[in-house]
Amino acid sequence: MKRALGVCYYPEHWPEEKWAEDAALMARTGLVWVRIGEFAWSRLEPQPGQLDFAWLDRAIETLGAAGLKVVLGTPTATPPRWMLDQHPDMLAVDREGRTRKFGSRRHYCFSHIGYRKACARIVTLLAERYGRNRHVAAWQTDNEYGCHDTVISYSDAARAEFRNWLAQRYQSPQALNRAWGNVFWSMDYESFEQIDLPNLTVCEANPAHEMAFRRFSSDQVVSFNRLQTEILRRHTDAPIIHNYMSRYTDFDHFDVGADLDIASWDSYPLGHLITRTDASEEDKKHYLRQGDPDNQAFHHDLYRAVGKGRWWIMEQQPGPVNWADYNPAPLPGMARLWAWEAFAHGAEAVCYFRWRQAPFAQEQMHAGLLRPDSEPAPALAEAAQVAQELADMPEVETGKADAAIIFDYPSAWAWSIQPQGKDFDYVALVFAYYRAMRQLGLNIDIVPASDPDIARYKLVAIPGLMTVPERLSAQLERFEGVVLAGPRTGCKTEEFSIPVPLPPALPGLDTRVAYVESLPPDAPVALEAGGHFMSWREKLEGSAEALERCSDGWPALVGSGRMFYVGGWGDRVALSRIVGMACRRAGIETLNLPRDVRVRTTATHRFYFNYGGEQIAFAGNDLAPGGVGWERL
Amino acid sequence: MKRALGVCYYPEHWPEEKWAEDAALMARTGLVWVRIGEFAWSRLEPQPGQLDFAWLDRAIETLGAAGLKVVLGTPTATPPRWMLDQHPDMLAVDREGRTRKFGSRRHYCFSHIGYRKACARIVTLLAERYGRNRHVAAWQTDNEYGCHDTVISYSDAARAEFRNWLAQRYQSPQALNRAWGNVFWSMDYESFEQIDLPNLTVCEANPAHEMAFRRFSSDQVVSFNRLQTEILRRHTDAPIIHNYMSRYTDFDHFDVGADLDIASWDSYPLGHLITRTDASEEDKKHYLRQGDPDNQAFHHDLYRAVGKGRWWIMEQQPGPVNWADYNPAPLPGMARLWAWEAFAHGAEAVCYFRWRQAPFAQEQMHAGLLRPDSEPAPALAEAAQVAQELADMPEVETGKADAAIIFDYPSAWAWSIQPQGKDFDYVALVFAYYRAMRQLGLNIDIVPASDPDIARYKLVAIPGLMTVPERLSAQLERFEGVVLAGPRTGCKTEEFSIPVPLPPALPGLDTRVAYVESLPPDAPVALEAGGHFMSWREKLEGSAEALERCSDGWPALVGSGRMFYVGGWGDRVALSRIVGMACRRAGIETLNLPRDVRVRTTATHRFYFNYGGEQIAFAGNDLAPGGVGWERL
Amino acid sequence: MKRALGVCYYPEHWPEEKWAEDAALMARTGLVWVRIGEFAWSRLEPQPGQLDFAWLDRAIETLGAAGLKVVLGTPTATPPRWMLDQHPDMLAVDREGRTRKFGSRRHYCFSHIGYRKACARIVTLLAERYGRNRHVAAWQTDNEYGCHDTVISYSDAARAEFRNWLAQRYQSPQALNRAWGNVFWSMDYESFEQIDLPNLTVCEANPAHEMAFRRFSSDQVVSFNRLQTEILRRHTDAPIIHNYMSRYTDFDHFDVGADLDIASWDSYPLGHLITRTDASEEDKKHYLRQGDPDNQAFHHDLYRAVGKGRWWIMEQQPGPVNWADYNPAPLPGMARLWAWEAFAHGAEAVCYFRWRQAPFAQEQMHAGLLRPDSEPAPALAEAAQVAQELADMPEVETGKADAAIIFDYPSAWAWSIQPQGKDFDYVALVFAYYRAMRQLGLNIDIVPASDPDIARYKLVAIPGLMTVPERLSAQLERFEGVVLAGPRTGCKTEEFSIPVPLPPALPGLDTRVAYVESLPPDAPVALEAGGHFMSWREKLEGSAEALERCSDGWPALVGSGRMFYVGGWGDRVALSRIVGMACRRAGIETLNLPRDVRVRTTATHRFYFNYGGEQIAFAGNDLAPGGVGWERL
Repeated sequence: MKRALGVCYYPEHWPEEKWAEDAALMARTGLVWVRIGEFAWSRLEPQPGQLDFAWLDRAIETLGAAGLKVVLGTPTATPPRWMLDQHPDMLAVDREGRTRKFGSRRHYCFSHIGYRKACARIVTLLAERYGRNRHVAAWQTDNEYGCHDTVISYSDAARAEFRNWLAQRYQSPQALNRAWGNVFWSMDYESFEQIDLPNLTVCEANPAHEMAFRRFSSDQVVSFNRLQTEILRRHTDAPIIHNYMSRYTDFDHFDVGADLDIASWDSYPLGHLITRTDASEEDKKHYLRQGDPDNQAFHHDLYRAVGKGRWWIMEQQPGPVNWADYNPAPLPGMARLWAWEAFAHGAEAVCYFRWRQAPFAQEQMHAGLLRPDSEPAPALAEAAQVAQELADMPEVETGKADAAIIFDYPSAWAWSIQPQGKDFDYVALVFAYYRAMRQLGLNIDIVPASDPDIARYKLVAIPGLMTVPERLSAQLERFEGVVLAGPRTGCKTEEFSIPVPLPPALPGLDTRVAYVESLPPDAPVALEAGGHFMSWREKLEGSAEALERCSDGWPALVGSGRMFYVGGWGDRVALSRIVGMACRRAGIETLNLPRDVRVRTTATHRFYFNYGGEQIAFAGNDLAPGGVGWERL
Repeated sequence: MKRALGVCYYPEHWPEEKWAEDAALMARTGLVWVRIGEFAWSRLEPQPGQLDFAWLDRAIETLGAAGLKVVLGTPTATPPRWMLDQHPDMLAVDREGRTRKFGSRRHYCFSHIGYRKACARIVTLLAERYGRNRHVAAWQTDNEYGCHDTVISYSDAARAEFRNWLAQRYQSPQALNRAWGNVFWSMDYESFEQIDLPNLTVCEANPAHEMAFRRFSSDQVVSFNRLQTEILRRHTDAPIIHNYMSRYTDFDHFDVGADLDIASWDSYPLGHLITRTDASEEDKKHYLRQGDPDNQAFHHDLYRAVGKGRWWIMEQQPGPVNWADYNPAPLPGMARLWAWEAFAHGAEAVCYFRWRQAPFAQEQMHAGLLRPDSEPAPALAEAAQVAQELADMPEVETGKADAAIIFDYPSAWAWSIQPQGKDFDYVALVFAYYRAMRQLGLNIDIVPASDPDIARYKLVAIPGLMTVPERLSAQLERFEGVVLAGPRTGCKTEEFSIPVPLPPALPGLDTRVAYVESLPPDAPVALEAGGHFMSWREKLEGSAEALERCSDGWPALVGSGRMFYVGGWGDRVALSRIVGMACRRAGIETLNLPRDVRVRTTATHRFYFNYGGEQIAFAGNDLAPGGVGWERL
Repeated sequence: MKRALGVCYYPEHWPEEKWAEDAALMARTGLVWVRIGEFAWSRLEPQPGQLDFAWLDRAIETLGAAGLKVVLGTPTATPPRWMLDQHPDMLAVDREGRTRKFGSRRHYCFSHIGYRKACARIVTLLAERYGRNRHVAAWQTDNEYGCHDTVISYSDAARAEFRNWLAQRYQSPQALNRAWGNVFWSMDYESFEQIDLPNLTVCEANPAHEMAFRRFSSDQVVSFNRLQTEILRRHTDAPIIHNYMSRYTDFDHFDVGADLDIASWDSYPLGHLITRTDASEEDKKHYLRQGDPDNQAFHHDLYRAVGKGRWWIMEQQPGPVNWADYNPAPLPGMARLWAWEAFAHGAEAVCYFRWRQAPFAQEQMHAGLLRPDSEPAPALAEAAQVAQELADMPEVETGKADAAIIFDYPSAWAWSIQPQGKDFDYVALVFAYYRAMRQLGLNIDIVPASDPDIARYKLVAIPGLMTVPERLSAQLERFEGVVLAGPRTGCKTEEFSIPVPLPPALPGLDTRVAYVESLPPDAPVALEAGGHFMSWREKLEGSAEALERCSDGWPALVGSGRMFYVGGWGDRVALSRIVGMACRRAGIETLNLPRDVRVRTTATHRFYFNYGGEQIAFAGNDLAPGGVGWERL
């Protein structure tokens, strides 16, 4: 597998006479891929049925002639204004009941049948025309499903489809009433037609109602995407990709990914750090111009799993962006470091977003590789350097991981429906485990709870997995490595009830969560061995040995030789120690990394990344601020 | 009066074969009362007119056979889904104009005539069937009026009834215009039909308009409740109760209470402390697992007044709950301490909520006396201990109080309509006075401003009573004890204007509030004698002697021998000194209690409560953390 | 020009028998002007067509007979309730889509044609009746345009007028699409009828769309006001005034002012300081009872420009008000200091708001010169003192300013549409420049970017002027003084795009903003010469000399002899130094003022104001807390 750089480009934004010049400079810079077309519907079909593909033909030909390979996007994220005349009820509705109007992008409800048909039509037209085009080497469906909170819609279309979905799942209202426990507050239904969407209820809706709606909403994305992949596959053999986002969990990416060939994600390290709620103020300041040293790697590993091994960065931040609360410039070198971090984690391609900064419209303050005046922005030279280094580098193959973390989108929904403590968040918990492992120098795989294959690992962490699917349970029975589970693992049934017997019900571990408590930020509970349980704690009972205890005697970590359960949300000190213990038991070697340094080991190399603003010497590498180093193994 | 424990139970949630076993364990634990039925409408009437009381007959019989006494709830807080088909416009509407949908509970507007008729029908059916049942020893109307902000509704039904209410009160639009001062911004009305509800106005509505709407909204609760009590009284002699909430003032509980036999309230000390805005962060942390040491007592005294002497705790927190921002576990012993604190304040019954933690639906994270797996939760043993102690204790009669605080729901509305300083809150002011008295070891009575009887007290505090009713004024003229009034006492007329002559117009006290000022939290004004005026200060004029002054010379406390007025909102230091002065003048003995200790004196005993997390020795008692002690007088 | 005091009065609020007594006391206090009538529509026309001017005739006569001059307000800010029966769709709609109901004031949408006609009718009736009345010496149109966020409305009426406005401006949808860059996300329109208002879009609307809507919304205010001035001018020669507000930029005051004779503003120094977001907590506390020492002066200078030299204070805070988060009482003396500060800046009149505190309706907690019981409030004596001092003072003529700051309402809109950093605000930036100059003792003129005349100045500052109008560009080419521009100056075209060549494109200055970055509050960038760039920084390129640099080497201040550009948002230390440098280059003398002292120099005097709470001796003046001093030049 040859890794390559690329860029996102919008020929429709620029005079046609610039296209060839742009393409030549892209090629000269060493870029290989160019993504186009994903927002161009109004120029492909200015009026209903009045199609204009000629300019796109020429754009693809111009790019291809320069030696570039095209990723062609389906334009369904931005239906033209005339689409609303045909389908006035196609717009999504927010939780407050407000229709989300035309005037930006993603102005559609996934459940609207009429709009789905319109999408099928334009995708068919594109697939027929470009499915065998020799320059179109990959396809992208739509763009960033869910961006701007667009997965969950409270529209009439969504309500109608939700009722159908419920009828399919439960078959009778009586079965649904039993499954949800609707007896609780006389919430019983006599027909599916009586069931509304779970917004604007007097107080919180039944969590089982919310959970069903979250499952439904995710399934709507899956079927919306599948509609496109089924059409595309009839006309092309090129791989089909979608570009996912960071820390976004409103649909099950594993389910969408099952219909695609490659997963890609859009990586904006600076904006993501600023908007993240689980990062400390100190970290936000320290890494202001570099991004969180673990966040990108976490998503690389996550989307490698979503892509079943094949993944890209479809959009890579090249400079200041426009959408975060504050938009600093990256430290010089970061456009290179981020790309190498991706390649070290197995990315097949890293595409910068975007080629030239657009002087107009919503993203005019978003940097590109070129400035609006077509002069090079700082990232252009860094991209050229990476391209050169890639050319010099023997093929980089994804390294093997001994440790895995189980990840599960439905658990993210369940946590958000019932956090039980303000702002508690599943991804933050999983990320805390990920960070603890990565700071110990590990290669890590993310493994879907819904489709696990854990036999190959020495250590599997299962934090916060609200419902343990049967296949995973079965694998855990046979698993020979070390398991580190909890908190909240196994605490709900599939229908959002507390299971009896009480959780976690792990094989070979006699422990039960008698009850739980959530804690405010200023009232953590100290652990005898150091560190604290923040925000969450469980009262564990049973015969399993308590390896660690809280200062008031509650068991904190229980376990036998291979199966461990953590009864709380550990802070950095606690998690680092507990994960370190698990690594020792699993026979995994660990490193003692400085705060700012991270490593990633491929099949042939070990890479070193300096996320700090100071020069660091580590393991024989002299790492400049924002610097990358590597050694052959 | 024999005090007793009880529990809330939902037979409809559990298999019928468990009922007898549950009842037996309740009885064995020493519980006497069991409340049932208040959310069971959909099981009593699954479809319109299709009634099923058989299961409830059997449940009552099973509980009664075990020796338990039943409190039967009317199920009007949770109308079944089919009710909406009959009355699509019965839902309340929030201040933003959004209809509050089905899917949780309390989904009705108090003003909807059709729903009132439906309530009358189901209550009649229940009363006819169970009014003379030998096991049904008390009734509860509806459940927690106002929970989830449901008193105030901006629905069409509310608007129509509001116009009728205004027409009754004012008789002519001209009278209303004069009363409200509608000339102010050309807000005059020519007919009652022109008057809208006071939400979504361009800027704030006329405070007199808001106040009328608050009075109306409260009256709607009163008449809704009275509809049920009138029906019940035709069929039963058992006492009728409602379960009120903590720090909830959206309706006048004295008015509702006038139609009931017993007041009860739902006490969740930990959740209440976390969500309260007037508690310091330090207190929230210190009392995280115990609750505020004065909050429960305050409500005990308040609801004793609402119940005209007779009161219960209908729901007592037994462990972690599900609804606060954070939900810690109580310190061991608190389920006992809270119960004893209630009995010492004269509660006739304390019922834990709930029997067994439900594994499904909205409250699945709310602890019970049993866990979801039917094993005992920690509170079960504490309840059993209290039951045993109660059996051993001679009858506990409510002690006499020398000090009283005047409380007034309309004042709470007036403060919220016109706080004049961000977040200023009437209950917080009253509570500050209450706390100052209680920390001096006093028994305290709460006395309604609308129906006062103050002659028996040595000291009466009247903080923040915006309008002094005529009956209270008349009693003050004759009162021989000490009065400690202010700030803001008497500052508004009944129609929300500033009275002329200026307030407070207290008998025998020549002082006037020339003007007031409100202050940000970081700019308190020091008092010469120590402490500060926080957030609120009044410029007092007149010949009354200034007993205390602000550092800039403004009078802070003025008064003659028996009548005192405080011209600001004192902090703890200032209030403690001023209340102490008033006690001395009134001839009331005070105690010097440690921070965590509280006392309550009954007719026969003095009780000591340790709200701290450490062992304390006080007055010869060795009090464990969360411990209770008592001595015979 | 003789300066005078005045007061706002509402005869309709008081019994007619009090009018003469009130008028006599006003005259005795030394007041000259009395503003009346602006909220009286419901008393002038209680029912449609049923006019009652008799009481107003008598009120004017009574006031005039006492020697007072009347400012008569048109009552269009408070249409009576019956107007809604005639025009149910006249109400404005907020950004969330909620109709803003009757019940307070300003309940109209500026775009509603029917309401405009109704306004024209009542203004005509008033103008005909009082246009030649000898006591009516000035007119006020409406009241505080925009108060309570009323300029921007998302009503159907606004949408219809917006489409007309767009059609006028762009002539074709294709031209609009090109101007806005609608190709960006397939946002192209085929007809003006397809264009909606830019609220409730899925994510942010095109900034060009937003900007057009802001321009339109401002234009609607201009034409609404012009409708009234055109009628009034047909019937009266008295000057026509509007009373603007503080820090309010939702319409272009220069445009409205072009149709008026005098600008006035409503000055509430304490409330404004508390609600301002760019004041430090320390300043808010230090100046709690005095107001920001530069805020009033800034608005004096701004509205002197809006009034083309003629300006008033129409409403002057006399004591605590009712509308801020907290409402402290002013330091004794401030009602005098504020008035003198205004006169020193050239005010023709200062009118206190209001005569007697109203005991009823929305503003009952707003102090007046009299208390509700008709006793004098503290400000009455201070007003009398000012009146006496004015009588003793030779005529005060506005002093000449050597320094000017360019101000531009469209820039305020542009900054709010695209702050690029959370809460960044144009007025805060301009104010930071203003404060730096004023703390150096300068007289300052504010100059509109749209109608500049800069030749007379030695120094012109141009901070944050997003688009530099052509006339200003032309004047800058010829300007012989010193120019201090930036940051963000010239960074957008008229249609909200980034210009190419890149900004700032200042004559004779070879520098370009290659890119920008925004920074969180805790991550400022140090300057080599001291101080920091807060929140905003620009990467400057070009041959212009770097006079100052950031600690990481980025140029911070570049410039040649007369033309300087600041590449960031300097803190107080940095701005003071940079402005000081500019003054030296411009040959302007500066003072070194203590923190709390400010000066203003008129044609004949230098005034000293002590905004502090302590006695200060400065330049031979002994200034009491809140004191004013002056010396003849």
